[in-house]
Amino acid sequence: MARVVCFGELLLRLSAPGRERLLQSPQLEVRIGGAEANVGVSLSCFGHQVAAVGTVADNALGEAAAGELRRHGLDTSGLRKAPGRMGLYFLAPGAIHRPAEVLYDRAGSAFALAPADAYDWPALLQGADWLHLSGVTPALGANTAAAALAAARAARAAGAKVSFDGNFRPKLWEVWQGDARAILSELMAEADLLFADYRDMGVVLGGQYPQAEALARVEAAAADAFAAFPHLQWMACTIRAPRNVDHHALSGVLVDRDRGTALAPQEEVGPIVDRIGGGDAFAAGVLHGLIGGWEPERTIRFGLAAGCLKHSIPGDFNLVSEAEVEALVGEGRYDVRR
Amino acid sequence: MARVVCFGELLLRLSAPGRERLLQSPQLEVRIGGAEANVGVSLSCFGHQVAAVGTVADNALGEAAAGELRRHGLDTSGLRKAPGRMGLYFLAPGAIHRPAEVLYDRAGSAFALAPADAYDWPALLQGADWLHLSGVTPALGANTAAAALAAARAARAAGAKVSFDGNFRPKLWEVWQGDARAILSELMAEADLLFADYRDMGVVLGGQYPQAEALARVEAAAADAFAAFPHLQWMACTIRAPRNVDHHALSGVLVDRDRGTALAPQEEVGPIVDRIGGGDAFAAGVLHGLIGGWEPERTIRFGLAAGCLKHSIPGDFNLVSEAEVEALVGEGRYDVRR
Amino acid sequence: MARVVCFGELLLRLSAPGRERLLQSPQLEVRIGGAEANVGVSLSCFGHQVAAVGTVADNALGEAAAGELRRHGLDTSGLRKAPGRMGLYFLAPGAIHRPAEVLYDRAGSAFALAPADAYDWPALLQGADWLHLSGVTPALGANTAAAALAAARAARAAGAKVSFDGNFRPKLWEVWQGDARAILSELMAEADLLFADYRDMGVVLGGQYPQAEALARVEAAAADAFAAFPHLQWMACTIRAPRNVDHHALSGVLVDRDRGTALAPQEEVGPIVDRIGGGDAFAAGVLHGLIGGWEPERTIRFGLAAGCLKHSIPGDFNLVSEAEVEALVGEGRYDVRR
Amino acid sequence: MARVVCFGELLLRLSAPGRERLLQSPQLEVRIGGAEANVGVSLSCFGHQVAAVGTVADNALGEAAAGELRRHGLDTSGLRKAPGRMGLYFLAPGAIHRPAEVLYDRAGSAFALAPADAYDWPALLQGADWLHLSGVTPALGANTAAAALAAARAARAAGAKVSFDGNFRPKLWEVWQGDARAILSELMAEADLLFADYRDMGVVLGGQYPQAEALARVEAAAADAFAAFPHLQWMACTIRAPRNVDHHALSGVLVDRDRGTALAPQEEVGPIVDRIGGGDAFAAGVLHGLIGGWEPERTIRFGLAAGCLKHSIPGDFNLVSEAEVEALVGEGRYDVRR
Amino acid sequence: MARVVCFGELLLRLSAPGRERLLQSPQLEVRIGGAEANVGVSLSCFGHQVAAVGTVADNALGEAAAGELRRHGLDTSGLRKAPGRMGLYFLAPGAIHRPAEVLYDRAGSAFALAPADAYDWPALLQGADWLHLSGVTPALGANTAAAALAAARAARAAGAKVSFDGNFRPKLWEVWQGDARAILSELMAEADLLFADYRDMGVVLGGQYPQAEALARVEAAAADAFAAFPHLQWMACTIRAPRNVDHHALSGVLVDRDRGTALAPQEEVGPIVDRIGGGDAFAAGVLHGLIGGWEPERTIRFGLAAGCLKHSIPGDFNLVSEAEVEALVGEGRYDVRR
Amino acid sequence: MARVVCFGELLLRLSAPGRERLLQSPQLEVRIGGAEANVGVSLSCFGHQVAAVGTVADNALGEAAAGELRRHGLDTSGLRKAPGRMGLYFLAPGAIHRPAEVLYDRAGSAFALAPADAYDWPALLQGADWLHLSGVTPALGANTAAAALAAARAARAAGAKVSFDGNFRPKLWEVWQGDARAILSELMAEADLLFADYRDMGVVLGGQYPQAEALARVEAAAADAFAAFPHLQWMACTIRAPRNVDHHALSGVLVDRDRGTALAPQEEVGPIVDRIGGGDAFAAGVLHGLIGGWEPERTIRFGLAAGCLKHSIPGDFNLVSEAEVEALVGEGRYDVRR
Repeated sequence: MARVVCFGELLLRLSAPGRERLLQSPQLEVRIGGAEANVGVSLSCFGHQVAAVGTVADNALGEAAAGELRRHGLDTSGLRKAPGRMGLYFLAPGAIHRPAEVLYDRAGSAFALAPADAYDWPALLQGADWLHLSGVTPALGANTAAAALAAARAARAAGAKVSFDGNFRPKLWEVWQGDARAILSELMAEADLLFADYRDMGVVLGGQYPQAEALARVEAAAADAFAAFPHLQWMACTIRAPRNVDHHALSGVLVDRDRGTALAPQEEVGPIVDRIGGGDAFAAGVLHGLIGGWEPERTIRFGLAAGCLKHSIPGDFNLVSEAEVEALVGEGRYDVRR
Repeated sequence: MARVVCFGELLLRLSAPGRERLLQSPQLEVRIGGAEANVGVSLSCFGHQVAAVGTVADNALGEAAAGELRRHGLDTSGLRKAPGRMGLYFLAPGAIHRPAEVLYDRAGSAFALAPADAYDWPALLQGADWLHLSGVTPALGANTAAAALAAARAARAAGAKVSFDGNFRPKLWEVWQGDARAILSELMAEADLLFADYRDMGVVLGGQYPQAEALARVEAAAADAFAAFPHLQWMACTIRAPRNVDHHALSGVLVDRDRGTALAPQEEVGPIVDRIGGGDAFAAGVLHGLIGGWEPERTIRFGLAAGCLKHSIPGDFNLVSEAEVEALVGEGRYDVRR
Repeated sequence: MARVVCFGELLLRLSAPGRERLLQSPQLEVRIGGAEANVGVSLSCFGHQVAAVGTVADNALGEAAAGELRRHGLDTSGLRKAPGRMGLYFLAPGAIHRPAEVLYDRAGSAFALAPADAYDWPALLQGADWLHLSGVTPALGANTAAAALAAARAARAAGAKVSFDGNFRPKLWEVWQGDARAILSELMAEADLLFADYRDMGVVLGGQYPQAEALARVEAAAADAFAAFPHLQWMACTIRAPRNVDHHALSGVLVDRDRGTALAPQEEVGPIVDRIGGGDAFAAGVLHGLIGGWEPERTIRFGLAAGCLKHSIPGDFNLVSEAEVEALVGEGRYDVRR
Repeated sequence: MARVVCFGELLLRLSAPGRERLLQSPQLEVRIGGAEANVGVSLSCFGHQVAAVGTVADNALGEAAAGELRRHGLDTSGLRKAPGRMGLYFLAPGAIHRPAEVLYDRAGSAFALAPADAYDWPALLQGADWLHLSGVTPALGANTAAAALAAARAARAAGAKVSFDGNFRPKLWEVWQGDARAILSELMAEADLLFADYRDMGVVLGGQYPQAEALARVEAAAADAFAAFPHLQWMACTIRAPRNVDHHALSGVLVDRDRGTALAPQEEVGPIVDRIGGGDAFAAGVLHGLIGGWEPERTIRFGLAAGCLKHSIPGDFNLVSEAEVEALVGEGRYDVRR
Repeated sequence: MARVVCFGELLLRLSAPGRERLLQSPQLEVRIGGAEANVGVSLSCFGHQVAAVGTVADNALGEAAAGELRRHGLDTSGLRKAPGRMGLYFLAPGAIHRPAEVLYDRAGSAFALAPADAYDWPALLQGADWLHLSGVTPALGANTAAAALAAARAARAAGAKVSFDGNFRPKLWEVWQGDARAILSELMAEADLLFADYRDMGVVLGGQYPQAEALARVEAAAADAFAAFPHLQWMACTIRAPRNVDHHALSGVLVDRDRGTALAPQEEVGPIVDRIGGGDAFAAGVLHGLIGGWEPERTIRFGLAAGCLKHSIPGDFNLVSEAEVEALVGEGRYDVRR
Repeated sequence: MARVVCFGELLLRLSAPGRERLLQSPQLEVRIGGAEANVGVSLSCFGHQVAAVGTVADNALGEAAAGELRRHGLDTSGLRKAPGRMGLYFLAPGAIHRPAEVLYDRAGSAFALAPADAYDWPALLQGADWLHLSGVTPALGANTAAAALAAARAARAAGAKVSFDGNFRPKLWEVWQGDARAILSELMAEADLLFADYRDMGVVLGGQYPQAEALARVEAAAADAFAAFPHLQWMACTIRAPRNVDHHALSGVLVDRDRGTALAPQEEVGPIVDRIGGGDAFAAGVLHGLIGGWEPERTIRFGLAAGCLKHSIPGDFNLVSEAEVEALVGEGRYDVRR
């Protein structure tokens, strides 16, 4: 089992009950999430030692968010508490032809306002095997961009591998006019593992991927990434084909610089319970395989199965054990387990 | 944007939670509905000025029903309050092979007992572009039948167009032995737009529609309707093919007296969240296109998309904007909107 | 209508709300169930006089369980109250690729600890047309095994027919090292009707069923059963093909010793609301046909339709009337019933 | 233990959650009640054999109401099912200075419309020790007034004692212009036990009770009642002093024609959980004492304790055992019972 | 009935269910509030024509907030929609010795960021009899302070009376270093009616109020206010004595420049359902009396009764009619109203 | 801040919603509790480092219980997982005159069945300042009695202080015929701090305490305890006077062997939200004062304030900070904190 550090923002998700629109009835369900925390919780459920690093508001909401991570086994001693607000997002899950709606209310959060030097990376990364980051963090502003880069460099310096999930969000970058291309490039340059597809590579490297097949586009983008970033060993992504809001099809790709492409064949996923966090669950699954030194084929199949299972679980977290993912990889059993 | 008056009964819907049978557990969810109110709320969401005319009980239930219409932007100054009871219906939504059950408890409501001359139509219709009515209102008794006819005639006199949704309910007509055929004929004779299919025309005009294809039956019925009702300009309906209780297929037809048939191709609709109000949502969509002077093709596609979206929303109302319907007409996007 | 006695354990089911994992949020929904009670409630809904025999804890939980049976029309005067605990099971319903999880917590229940001679069978079976039992009861221990056998023999002595649902549960037998094969054989030897498939016959009779088709395996097993158990007149079972957790396909088989095999063709069942009790609902449907002296074909179609409908109803009980099952057998109507 | 028949209307109570106003949020909690059913359920909880006689709607709501009585041990074989609607009442419980609001919606119910000769009283009363009725039933119309009188006379003829709860409701009598005074007099003339106070006697006998003390008024009214109704043996009532909506004080009086007045001293009752059914719980408690042949003092103390306990239980029913009432009569223990 | 304009910020209140701490369980109840909206809704319930002026976010949350005001009869055509966020506050209601906790999250809201000239006051105030404002609005920043002052001056210019509720919030003023004393003075100088007590006057006028009795302090402060602000005609406030979190005592004072002090005697208020909005309900009650030209005594008694009733209603709004308040002023009736 | 180890059983509490009786409606709220865990969570909220030692079932329920402790900051690495069941208790909270009901279902739990040598005390107590135990643990059987004694002795050996809460439960001791007096004596002999009153001392030491005043009885019992147990330094308890189920009065006593009695004067506590865990909250408060080396007076006031606050919080845990307790000790503020 590995020691993994996840750095990113914890968010409170406030969602409409059932399939209602936002505030159609006067109730909100509260879940905790955040791209990196989602990966961290999943890895903790697989048995790894995971530490969350970041900043939460020093109030009841921040305490509740941290508590939820501890509940799922994460070490939160690296979560700072600072005056300010928690980032929020409001969610109406959608149905049939009506897409889920996310309404972000995260500007000015305690995490976004934390100074870049608030984190003592050598201490926080002590003993870590991996650092996991995502492209949401640098998108929040100059402070968090600098912090993310410092984290990645400190990890590399400390001998920990770096996992980076592209997660390109143009709207966030526009707010503060950040140079997404430059900053993401610097971060990817530190990464051993990159979760990204041809769209991200188009943004960061300016590549064009006119291939008809999604797989071909991913492979071409991976080739560009390996060329641009010498430290990079793996690039992985899902290929998602939504049939309607309640039913998607998912496949998974892992490209290893040395061993080439491994593919997990398409799974039909529906009726979807909760689509949020599906990509993060996939990332955690792939990380678990790489940590275990598994064959690429086994790794990507595990990652895809993990991603699929997430769609059956309410909330952002993929609360499944390694054995449950393995059971699906092996041969799905779809009747009651007694 | 148009000014639209909707005349009809507001009902309280009391539904079992989740997919339970009625009173399986001791809770009921309350929604407000009514064929005409449903159309009115949808038109208000599309940006029109909508006034609800009718009668509610002068108690907390009637006030709550009126308040719900105001919440969605309707003008309720034309809603009378009178002693008596609110019409209710109990709903168990069904699932898979078990059809939804509706248990009406609306006899003797303040609306049904309101005298025909309770409404000052010239004042209520002042400035109105359209009046929308349905066949449920005349089915409730002699009072409401007379009121509906008075409304339709006043609208025509005032230069407002008349939209009439057939909504034939034999059980209601039987209660008071009303002459459905004669009264519906009189109402349809005032209509510019008729929501009806071959079954309604069979009842009202006595036509036979043995054609194999539903579309052919609709077109034949429309031809009969145009022949019988010289004011009538459009007839529209959905063609619904239930695959099971949770999954229907829907297409839409709009026949313009002058420009012939426009068809919106079949959409698969499932898993259904709430099927109630699907026809009303379609009607509102078609009305929106006609108000906008759109091409029949665009109108019927918009109407069908609106009807489909309703199936994804709990309650009787189609709480979607014009932009959301347009997005579905254009090309559905079935992943999270951030 | 018949008088039917059901003997078995009443359980409290504590289930996670929605599609959550157990205790993901701090709420449990409580339902009452138990293989034999489920059959009894369904038969009561079909109009039969049903008496529940067993033992519940003499506390608020036992009283609630008994009350729930009375609510659905069962006579509970044959339910003993004794010090001790109620059997519980915790359920997380699963979704998509994640199977439902059942966590039993029934050891040491008042039912399991009741002495074999606690029941005065001649009195309890007076006037009964049928006794229904399942293989769960003898699996709970020597006491309940003896009680089940006593019940079956008393029924035969009293001229009541015996219905036995195999329900083989190896884990329960292992706990007390009971000789499942011998005891189940003795019970089946008393049965007129056996709900079982080739897997049960493999256990009890040691048969091998290598046939490719499930139907062929069932027929071969039935042949063995008729050979082994001279009193046996009917063997019935469903053949279940899970497509994913939310969607199964079901067909039904009834083999009559004299009239051969009747088959109800496969139905697609999904999205499933609650899969628990599907087999019991099928059993009640078949019993209803046999009680009515129906043709095997009609009986098995009714049984399968009953089993399908159960999947649409929350909880363990199949709360549908005979007319509702008939409506599905005839021709399903999948739109709102007003 | 006695056999008791309760004749009256079953109602569905639809209440706002928590302390909300009606429809402040879109949910209603459903409880079953009715003055006579409340008494019946309480007597059943005390161990008596209770049969409910009346008429419910032949739909899911009527079935649910009957089922709820069975759940609490009542025999519902004397409950007719007839086409029509269930009587409803909407409740907002109030708080502090805001009184609870009851909104009746019971006109035209299946019970109110049942013909007077719908009930076969000799059969329904066979073996009965007591018949319990209330003044609500005759207030509903000529049919139910005749039925109530027939029931009371049949009971007397059959040797069963008659318990009658005055429950004077002027609004109901006004609707059909019934002669409350005459009809209630006829009913009281059949009663052995009368739940009434000086206000009821003022209405029925025209008495004036200007005494300063409530107890003196009750005793004077009882004297008038014993004079007017020779069969009458007992009159009982509570004296209620509301301090605010959440806190009332209650005492109880039982006047025995022969043994004079027994008083249960005032209890402080608050914070009140549910005040509805408090009087019925008191009535059941007094009946329990009279059935048991207890001393008046013991009877009235038990009755008051039962009435007090009801205020602690959500819903209309007093779901407490005899032992729980006795514990309060003895000496209240107000800490956790383990 | 009067036309009243309320200008201020609409907030979403997110509260913990029951008496839980924030996020103790993962649910939040949503209510709409805001000091001025609370007054406006109450006045609308009393029958006045009320218009809400302000700015909400142009998203589903802002739309829901506006819809809630319409539901209660307010005209929201003067509510601007602008990009940005809605102000939020999180509430845990407290109990016994644990005070309620409010966690504001309102910085940077669309309302706070709206430019001072965003409102066309002459148009918005056309036909208005009163403008109601509170001290929260100027406390939010220079923009809203300027807007509030512009509104007050425009009202005075248009002949509308000005009602101002002090509502001093030091924390808000500190954020932007606004000169509370100067700005509040300017606003109070425009007011005809001031809701304030000696603490506010201490802040704004620098007065010292060492009197032992709260009433004496209020009267001294009122004397100072009348001296400082020549337009001022009335000053009113409640005097609140919390006995514990669930139980407060409240009295009310209205000082009329010409007619002196009117006092509403202390009421015991408990167990409190929802304390939020109690002061706003009092203000609306006083305004209602002044609009009606009532005697000061009657006005302050009505105001206090209104304030007391609010404590019995969940949410920020005092959803009671004039008749309900009058009933309490007259003589409270604390038993069920049927 | 101190390091504290709590050893005891974690239980799942399943409670009826609101003030309902058990299973009156089909829902249970789940909370986690246990006498020692309750103390541990409170100490963690006060800022101490707390480790939970014990055994939970190796299933989803055990995992949830452990997760809840982690959520509140406890170290659960000393919680063993073992096959078996979780101890449960069902709770109906009671109201007014109806006492709360607890129904234990904890026999045969994984904790109760854990062998005495399952815990490696020297390792588990490393660095600990205090060990906290209660009398429930030895009452569960010979295994847990031996484990508790081993723990206490290991603590003393390791230089950690021992806190022991008597919590005498005769019913549990009877089950296995354990010698309560002997075993509790042995445990108390190891204690530095004893939570107990005269009833416990009566049981363990056979003392008689006929004094009229509760305080005198406590002091006499403390004198006996100090005489019998030379290591004992402090004895503390609450004196609880229930006025009704919703309202108790509480005072607190701390007797220091050297400094005599400190008393916290009686507080009125009501309306009670949740009485469970009140004693544990008091214990944690006293421990916090002793850890801090506070004066006895300050310690007992803090302990009583902590105990009072618990009654305002749903669930077993006293989720309040030191500052919140201090605020109440200082001078309660009972209005909203903004």
